[in-house]
Amino acid sequence: MVQRLIRFLARDGKVYYGDAILPSGVTNIAKARQAKVIKGDIFGKHDVTDQVADVKSLLAPLAWDDVKTVRCLGLNYVQHAKETGMPIPTYPVLFYKPLTSLSGPSDNIPVPLHVQNAEGLDYECELVIVIGKPAREVPESEALDYVFGYAVGNDVSHREWQFKLGGGQWSHGKGYDGWAPFGPGIASSSLINDPQALRITTKLNGKTVQDSSTKDQIFNVAKTISTLSKGTTLLPGDLIFTGTPQGVGMGRKPPVWLKDGDIVEVNLEGVGSCTNKVEFEKTKSRL
Amino acid sequence: MVQRLIRFLARDGKVYYGDAILPSGVTNIAKARQAKVIKGDIFGKHDVTDQVADVKSLLAPLAWDDVKTVRCLGLNYVQHAKETGMPIPTYPVLFYKPLTSLSGPSDNIPVPLHVQNAEGLDYECELVIVIGKPAREVPESEALDYVFGYAVGNDVSHREWQFKLGGGQWSHGKGYDGWAPFGPGIASSSLINDPQALRITTKLNGKTVQDSSTKDQIFNVAKTISTLSKGTTLLPGDLIFTGTPQGVGMGRKPPVWLKDGDIVEVNLEGVGSCTNKVEFEKTKSRL
Repeated sequence: MVQRLIRFLARDGKVYYGDAILPSGVTNIAKARQAKVIKGDIFGKHDVTDQVADVKSLLAPLAWDDVKTVRCLGLNYVQHAKETGMPIPTYPVLFYKPLTSLSGPSDNIPVPLHVQNAEGLDYECELVIVIGKPAREVPESEALDYVFGYAVGNDVSHREWQFKLGGGQWSHGKGYDGWAPFGPGIASSSLINDPQALRITTKLNGKTVQDSSTKDQIFNVAKTISTLSKGTTLLPGDLIFTGTPQGVGMGRKPPVWLKDGDIVEVNLEGVGSCTNKVEFEKTKSRL
Repeated sequence: MVQRLIRFLARDGKVYYGDAILPSGVTNIAKARQAKVIKGDIFGKHDVTDQVADVKSLLAPLAWDDVKTVRCLGLNYVQHAKETGMPIPTYPVLFYKPLTSLSGPSDNIPVPLHVQNAEGLDYECELVIVIGKPAREVPESEALDYVFGYAVGNDVSHREWQFKLGGGQWSHGKGYDGWAPFGPGIASSSLINDPQALRITTKLNGKTVQDSSTKDQIFNVAKTISTLSKGTTLLPGDLIFTGTPQGVGMGRKPPVWLKDGDIVEVNLEGVGSCTNKVEFEKTKSRL
């Protein structure tokens, strides 16, 4: 059974899924330099082989074809809800990101021209749940059985588009290409004793700006899965970004907005870190 | 080149993609009883073969594996924005549905137990854009070149969950399994001279309740694609539900809410109809 799933470009030029090999005492999957190659279907029959490959660079731990739907929660940490001045939600505040927002743990975050002039570009470190098997109407007591593993992600957001220009719907200001870097790999749920006792942090240009624990979550992982599975089938490969703790740029006085060239590192205990550079696009970058 | 794409269960027990064969003068793809079988990748290399198969039942015109992201617009018809009492939006009001909400043109609409007691179950007939090739930063003048074709869909909604219980985010009350039936097939963009001149209607238990034209759209198809492609790659197989005209249940005095057993038919000129029965689930239906 895979312990720390990574997807990587190997030194042989090929892309593999692998089980990360880490030095003793290291838990940050971003430090993986070698991995056992995995053959088969990640959410179905697969083998962790004895073939060891050298990691050249880590990619998003799941390819777009292996992800189905990307769900996100808003306002899911008590202290973060307070810093925004919004009420503690009674039900999960659910929105979505498109597949194309997903990117890897060291990819740049492209900022399109039309959102560069306005203020509001922000970071959000988040625990990301990866669903492992189909789940519908799952009681809270069984919900963790449906978890494949956990990653860390950055729910990159533009506050002006999120709150004002999208008619109140948040997806518009959160869904641009590469605005959901995640990784560095997926730690199997068997490695995470208690998903509600993990330190979660963000460093902006090396300075800690978010530093909290998943114990501050309003809807914990089990409650989130149980609630979202009401009338809804969660599929293997579905991702759930579970909200961010206090310390985001918009919660600061004065607010801190991301600029071209900024380096944002999000980190989740037991999983590791994604480190992404903000890159303002210079043209209307077409395909 | 495929004219009217359908996906169907054939009399031989197999599921095929096909190009619908319609009697002369008929444009409602739901009337297809035979089709030329298509081999290959719908959004890549494929052939419309001479093999004719008998249609037993029409399925959602794209399998989940062939769809990437499902985007939806709210408040995109002038008269509908007026009936809701909400302001005419300056930018598209964007939200998403999960893949699991997609279902076929004659599938039942399952209503989970937890939303049966509250009032607010509603219909929304919509023109659905199917993207045919990757689109990013596409100018309005070229946007229609990226359209594979058009379908009709029903953006089934629960108003209480949409507006109140989801913290203001609409996805929660619109994303249940099977709450986005679409079809009956996809009419190639080559068949639709002007996507802004199509009659669009809903019949509830045989009585017309929505009857409008896509000319009332605030953001037309070209403008929608151009705007949504800013900083965002639209992928082949992406669907865009483009909003509903006036006449929804919540706009009526008194409001009209869907009940168990109701039959809802949405129809788009040149494409055809989806006819779906509302089915209240009797248990917490697990997998």
